[in-house]
Amino acid sequence: MDLIARLRAGLPGEAILTDPDVTGSYANDMTSFCEAGTPAVVVLPRTVEQVQHIMRTATELRVPVVPQGARTGLSGAANASDGCIVLSLVKMDRIIEINPVDRIAVVEPGVINAVLSRAVNEHGLYYPPDPSSWEECSIGGNIGTASGGLCCVKYGVTAEYVLGLDVVLADGRLLTCGRRTAKGVAGYDLTRLFVGSEGSLGIVVRAVLALKPEPPGQLALAAEFPSTAAACEAVCEIMARGHAPSLLELMDRTSIRAVNEMAQMGLPDSTEALLLAAFDTPEPAADLAAVGALCTAAGATEVVPAETAAESDLLLQARRLTLTALERVKSATMIDDVCVPRSRLAEMLDGTAAIAEKYDLTIGVCAHAGDGNTHPTVCFDAADPDESRRARESFDDIMALGLQLGGTITGEHGVGVLKKEWLARELGPVGVELQRGIKEVFDPLGILNPGKLF
Amino acid sequence: MDLIARLRAGLPGEAILTDPDVTGSYANDMTSFCEAGTPAVVVLPRTVEQVQHIMRTATELRVPVVPQGARTGLSGAANASDGCIVLSLVKMDRIIEINPVDRIAVVEPGVINAVLSRAVNEHGLYYPPDPSSWEECSIGGNIGTASGGLCCVKYGVTAEYVLGLDVVLADGRLLTCGRRTAKGVAGYDLTRLFVGSEGSLGIVVRAVLALKPEPPGQLALAAEFPSTAAACEAVCEIMARGHAPSLLELMDRTSIRAVNEMAQMGLPDSTEALLLAAFDTPEPAADLAAVGALCTAAGATEVVPAETAAESDLLLQARRLTLTALERVKSATMIDDVCVPRSRLAEMLDGTAAIAEKYDLTIGVCAHAGDGNTHPTVCFDAADPDESRRARESFDDIMALGLQLGGTITGEHGVGVLKKEWLARELGPVGVELQRGIKEVFDPLGILNPGKLF
Repeated sequence: MDLIARLRAGLPGEAILTDPDVTGSYANDMTSFCEAGTPAVVVLPRTVEQVQHIMRTATELRVPVVPQGARTGLSGAANASDGCIVLSLVKMDRIIEINPVDRIAVVEPGVINAVLSRAVNEHGLYYPPDPSSWEECSIGGNIGTASGGLCCVKYGVTAEYVLGLDVVLADGRLLTCGRRTAKGVAGYDLTRLFVGSEGSLGIVVRAVLALKPEPPGQLALAAEFPSTAAACEAVCEIMARGHAPSLLELMDRTSIRAVNEMAQMGLPDSTEALLLAAFDTPEPAADLAAVGALCTAAGATEVVPAETAAESDLLLQARRLTLTALERVKSATMIDDVCVPRSRLAEMLDGTAAIAEKYDLTIGVCAHAGDGNTHPTVCFDAADPDESRRARESFDDIMALGLQLGGTITGEHGVGVLKKEWLARELGPVGVELQRGIKEVFDPLGILNPGKLF
Repeated sequence: MDLIARLRAGLPGEAILTDPDVTGSYANDMTSFCEAGTPAVVVLPRTVEQVQHIMRTATELRVPVVPQGARTGLSGAANASDGCIVLSLVKMDRIIEINPVDRIAVVEPGVINAVLSRAVNEHGLYYPPDPSSWEECSIGGNIGTASGGLCCVKYGVTAEYVLGLDVVLADGRLLTCGRRTAKGVAGYDLTRLFVGSEGSLGIVVRAVLALKPEPPGQLALAAEFPSTAAACEAVCEIMARGHAPSLLELMDRTSIRAVNEMAQMGLPDSTEALLLAAFDTPEPAADLAAVGALCTAAGATEVVPAETAAESDLLLQARRLTLTALERVKSATMIDDVCVPRSRLAEMLDGTAAIAEKYDLTIGVCAHAGDGNTHPTVCFDAADPDESRRARESFDDIMALGLQLGGTITGEHGVGVLKKEWLARELGPVGVELQRGIKEVFDPLGILNPGKLF
């Protein structure tokens, strides 16, 4: 019996897409430079049982399965492979429970991050993880890539909010792991193993998420610096003095100019680095004053604290526009995601500038500075083979620099296809061997998202 | 070549203990009702290389290895098995680095929790996990059991503070996993897999720990309730209203009376439950006033807020004395560690009282109420076989009740020997199969802490 007929036995007709024009549109996430194959079929299940049927079918017929959320990923982890089943979880988008006493939400994987955020806000609760794509990305995708966002400097990443999971395994069996409780140490932490596993160990079909009480609205300041080194010194001082900003972002000169050009924001052209800090504390003005003083001491030429939420939004607008602005510089961009100890951030930024010069490229950097997580964005002309090659090489140099500074090749975007050669370098042979061993335990036939991670 | 001679080839003489009177004293942790075997030898390495030598020897000769920290554990996870090598990490007790900018500490596993806490305090930093045994327990043991403490309701458990690990594997190879950075998602989270693995996957020889800024000193209140149900209602209200207490503890009538008897603390005998709440916020008095009002609304007969740190310490003293006081009730105690969603806490406490009545036993309960983590403590006469049997059976009933309420058999003490039959019940067959698969990847010969967990 062929694949489509087998799938039809347990799925309604509208859950199975086979028209190549349609299935082809499911081939990619948002990453440049990553090959993608042609899927045999796209399935859109609505129930756990349907996902189990799909996985049983895939196991029987030995067909690879590529799980997908909203395909906003930046590492190619959701790219199709040839002849695969694309398993899109977007139709499983129910919020099952929001519980203010237990401070948890129970959701299906297709729930959009922003939809969940707003829903829990109505109960006075807060789901912190906020990737830039939060209006489009799904919770299942966030779990698959362990994604971060602007709030991580205070609230941590997705991994810290996943308490329990229901997972359909490669062979179709259903696993429930983790907990609904605040604490729990019963056996190995399988839940955490699935977070960031990029769909290579199982299909998440339900998640119990931890929530926080909703904090007061945040108030921001912007500080202009004559060098990235001075801005990084301010970052180190702010963190060493025990401040807890809800956001601490840095934009380099290239990013500032790109934003200025696109949005005429009037940031002074002499500014080499812009630091944005925000606090959602009970007295944000006092925190901003203290942090502003540290910026001035580190050499800031101008410090602009917002006095209202509207002013804050205006200040943060520059950061929000950065990637869009950089995408206008050339026909294509490659965004990197190297994270270094924050004490090495200045070296990372200087080194990235040197790499841009070496390869004669425009590389704009914005960074979750409080976490040492930089997003160097290489702007290049995709139609120019030489510039494309230089872009690719500069990307490798940036990752090498990150590792050399004691960092990681990916702070929050994941490995996918884009960085799989680099993962082995970061983990070392013993780490890779153990990771492959774990993969085999969960997916002995190797049908789950093959060709990703390793 | 025999075991001792092989060990001598890579260890100094004083690192090898063979006198049965001495090695026998390393047979147990602090758990009742757990069998322990007779170790062949106790080794006390001081370097990573020595640990590697021990594990290579154990692998060659197929000798089981039981890793030990300070042996303050409450599940028998560190109990010796017959003919094993007890590998005590207590001599590897260096604090290698404290870095206020990166907010990390790098330590060896034998560092005592309190020693680390005080050392980081000197840099204005805070290492939150604070098990009751914090003056004696070691960081390696804390990692092995993923231990908690009083602060978890605000700051979470040990797992949330372990960023990276160096681990000697069963065959003696050294694995470095995790990171020094604030964020990182490169591959499966091996670091988190080791946390709570009770020495069954590898020997942690170095840890990178996350630190927080040191918060202001906390201020506490005590509230007396006419029933545990009323106290639990207050707990639910406090958490549902978005408060962030740094401590939220509950003592039942039996605990209160035991403490009164031991320390003449003058808690009124009519009090059925005592709730203790503390805040380390900038304005703790305001938080205490709000929480005090919620307690009154829930039926508290008296609310006593502290006005100074000394008064706070006095209030918290009752909680700190609870286990010692309960240990005086009978010749032996068994302390349980069931964690339920906090919305089910009242049912857990009522159910535990019913179990005490059913078995005609004294069971005192203190609870990390904010986390729903109860420590029912069964007091019994170990010389009385019938009472001992009833104690053991009541313990099983308590775990069954916890699972029935959507909870876990262990919130922070771990599985060890004590709860291994129950672990399978909580995980289910699919979960157990995957966990065993992971164990085989790391320890194919099964020499690491055999007979624990599964």
